[in-house]
Amino acid sequence: MASSKRLEKNFQHLAGIGQESSGGFTRLAFSDTDWEAREFVIGLMKQAGLVIRVDAFGNVIGRREGVNPAASVIMTGSHIDSVPHGGNYDGVVGTLGAIEALQCLEEAGEKNYHPIEVVVFMSEESSRFGVATLGSKAFCGKLSREKLDELKDKQGLSLADVLRQRNLSPDNIAEAHYKGGIKSFLEIHIEQGKVLETTQNQLGVVTGIAAPTRLRVMFTGQADHSGATPMNMRQDALTAAAEIILQVEAFANEEAHNAVVGTTGIVKAEPGVMNVIPGKVELGIDIRGIDAPSKQRVVDKLKAEFEAIKKKRGVGIEVVVLSDDTPVKLPDHMVEFLYDICQQSSYKSIRMPSGAGHDAMHIATLADTGMVFIPCRDGISHNPAEHAKIEDITAATEVLTKAIQKLAAKE
Amino acid sequence: MASSKRLEKNFQHLAGIGQESSGGFTRLAFSDTDWEAREFVIGLMKQAGLVIRVDAFGNVIGRREGVNPAASVIMTGSHIDSVPHGGNYDGVVGTLGAIEALQCLEEAGEKNYHPIEVVVFMSEESSRFGVATLGSKAFCGKLSREKLDELKDKQGLSLADVLRQRNLSPDNIAEAHYKGGIKSFLEIHIEQGKVLETTQNQLGVVTGIAAPTRLRVMFTGQADHSGATPMNMRQDALTAAAEIILQVEAFANEEAHNAVVGTTGIVKAEPGVMNVIPGKVELGIDIRGIDAPSKQRVVDKLKAEFEAIKKKRGVGIEVVVLSDDTPVKLPDHMVEFLYDICQQSSYKSIRMPSGAGHDAMHIATLADTGMVFIPCRDGISHNPAEHAKIEDITAATEVLTKAIQKLAAKE
Repeated sequence: MASSKRLEKNFQHLAGIGQESSGGFTRLAFSDTDWEAREFVIGLMKQAGLVIRVDAFGNVIGRREGVNPAASVIMTGSHIDSVPHGGNYDGVVGTLGAIEALQCLEEAGEKNYHPIEVVVFMSEESSRFGVATLGSKAFCGKLSREKLDELKDKQGLSLADVLRQRNLSPDNIAEAHYKGGIKSFLEIHIEQGKVLETTQNQLGVVTGIAAPTRLRVMFTGQADHSGATPMNMRQDALTAAAEIILQVEAFANEEAHNAVVGTTGIVKAEPGVMNVIPGKVELGIDIRGIDAPSKQRVVDKLKAEFEAIKKKRGVGIEVVVLSDDTPVKLPDHMVEFLYDICQQSSYKSIRMPSGAGHDAMHIATLADTGMVFIPCRDGISHNPAEHAKIEDITAATEVLTKAIQKLAAKE
Repeated sequence: MASSKRLEKNFQHLAGIGQESSGGFTRLAFSDTDWEAREFVIGLMKQAGLVIRVDAFGNVIGRREGVNPAASVIMTGSHIDSVPHGGNYDGVVGTLGAIEALQCLEEAGEKNYHPIEVVVFMSEESSRFGVATLGSKAFCGKLSREKLDELKDKQGLSLADVLRQRNLSPDNIAEAHYKGGIKSFLEIHIEQGKVLETTQNQLGVVTGIAAPTRLRVMFTGQADHSGATPMNMRQDALTAAAEIILQVEAFANEEAHNAVVGTTGIVKAEPGVMNVIPGKVELGIDIRGIDAPSKQRVVDKLKAEFEAIKKKRGVGIEVVVLSDDTPVKLPDHMVEFLYDICQQSSYKSIRMPSGAGHDAMHIATLADTGMVFIPCRDGISHNPAEHAKIEDITAATEVLTKAIQKLAAKE
């Protein structure tokens, strides 16, 4: 049985690393606080009997040998870096939960046919280098040597410089690409939304990880005097943009099963004064979904709407596609496998998509992957107010432990 | 006949005062450049045979005596101060046009039954003290002694301090309230919009001066994660605001005869990032019209819409009324009188509302008031690109001269 006392103690210890007077936590990737937290979890992994190795990107892998050392690996883990002024749960739940699961197996003296590995991915948050999930990208062979020079933090330090500071050789980055066979990958994580809380479920089994299509849309009208320009002589960039803001919402709503969410998070109008009609407006639009055709349908409808509004209102509309990623559907058999364990353990649970990205979305390209979400208070994450209950963390760790036991047994 | 050569020479002279390397003009109220320009126009007024007096606010009044000095006065004028980096036409057309009209009467040796006065109002632009048309307010007895201490410029100088610098006594402000009877007031001005240009008219006879109702509207929703929050669990402050932006436009369009214009000039969304649903949005809304009931109808419809959207979307909406001024309808007989003169002189002209405010809107409370607009290129004003054609200035001055002649004759 997962020990909520031990989990709580480990959370408290980690909370002491990078905590700020505001109550938030800052453990930027590869920073001293990140490294101190990493040393702490390496210690925990050793206590759980794991044999530690570190890859070329600094990702930590702790191995519990299997009865058949040549068998494919059952893997679990997450990350410990944070956004600036973030919380102590995002990533940490999946890291400490994975270690606790292995600690339980060690204490039970279980024999596992498949080797089991706990992984702690470096630099999952985009806060330092502007790109998320760098460690799991390197792990999947998707991070090039050139990129290490290209990516720079605010101080101008490249990712390559930072790796060198940690005695890692950027030139060996290709070696971080995981070589062995992975049978399954499991990650537990806080939801970072409020679906579980709102629907009063304790656990969520993730059906897929949404990927965003992000658009920057520039509207160009005429910045005329708001008092002296009759309604029928206007080219108002903001009313044109307002139509799009509402269409983003409407088109997402038109997709069945909450398959797509559409958000206009950024709006800037120039000149931005009371007595001038906005001549320039910029929108930042984020369309996400776990179903690629559904997401594409929303994007296509929006593109048609841009053309319609250009004609109708005589304004210019310029669209820049900032990103257009493909969603990751997690295998149905993994979803049902985890959902069954939740049900057997009497944890009230639902199947649900993940709106945010996770290391698991990369590992899903290498191995059958499953994720379990726990609620976080008010859906708040990346914020000092981020909070998850120890009962929920323990419940997810229980499910993780049982899942690992089953997956690691001889077929 | 108004002399376009003389007008052009006077515009060129004034253009030398406060001109910047950018091509714009800065003659902030009561500044050295404003005072230099004032000295120049006082000189022109004297050349036109006018007897100069200055009121307690520094407004300049030049009088051409009438056959009956006790008869009510025919008055005309405008202002010479500018916004920062403004043009050389806003206010100047009405000032130099008025002086040219009186110069013509002087040269023709005409006898006018009614006295005629040219007035140059101080501090028409709100740029220095945040409040527009200060000189005409003082002239109408609407500027209190207390207000002179209250109003401060960016350097912290009060309007009272600035008056003292110009040897004017703030304590005498009540004496600026014009005592005599005014029969009619006339002002010519650039349109500051593009109705005349678009409809290819040379002159516009103003039917009324619109007054704004200005609202600051704060929308409060929930700043949740844009990826992890299903569409049906959102309280999106921006989509709520977008509905209002479109309703401002729609409700203004519903009023007949272009009676109302409605503009959302300001929109600010927080936190303003791609992956968070906007939790707070501020709109700045400007509703103007020359017909008070028509304007009020739009404001009332908007207020009802705020309530409807609160209920429909579960967001908070807080409305602050920043200003709620009453539009000024100019007397029909003045509109028709000026329109007839335009027609008789074969100037292509229309009747039209003024969207911007003018000194004339205050004087309209004292006397029958009429205004004539001339086109300005691309509708641009308060900008170095502000431009009006000398033919149009001359045409308006001709109409002004004829109107003064008729009004100043014995009834």
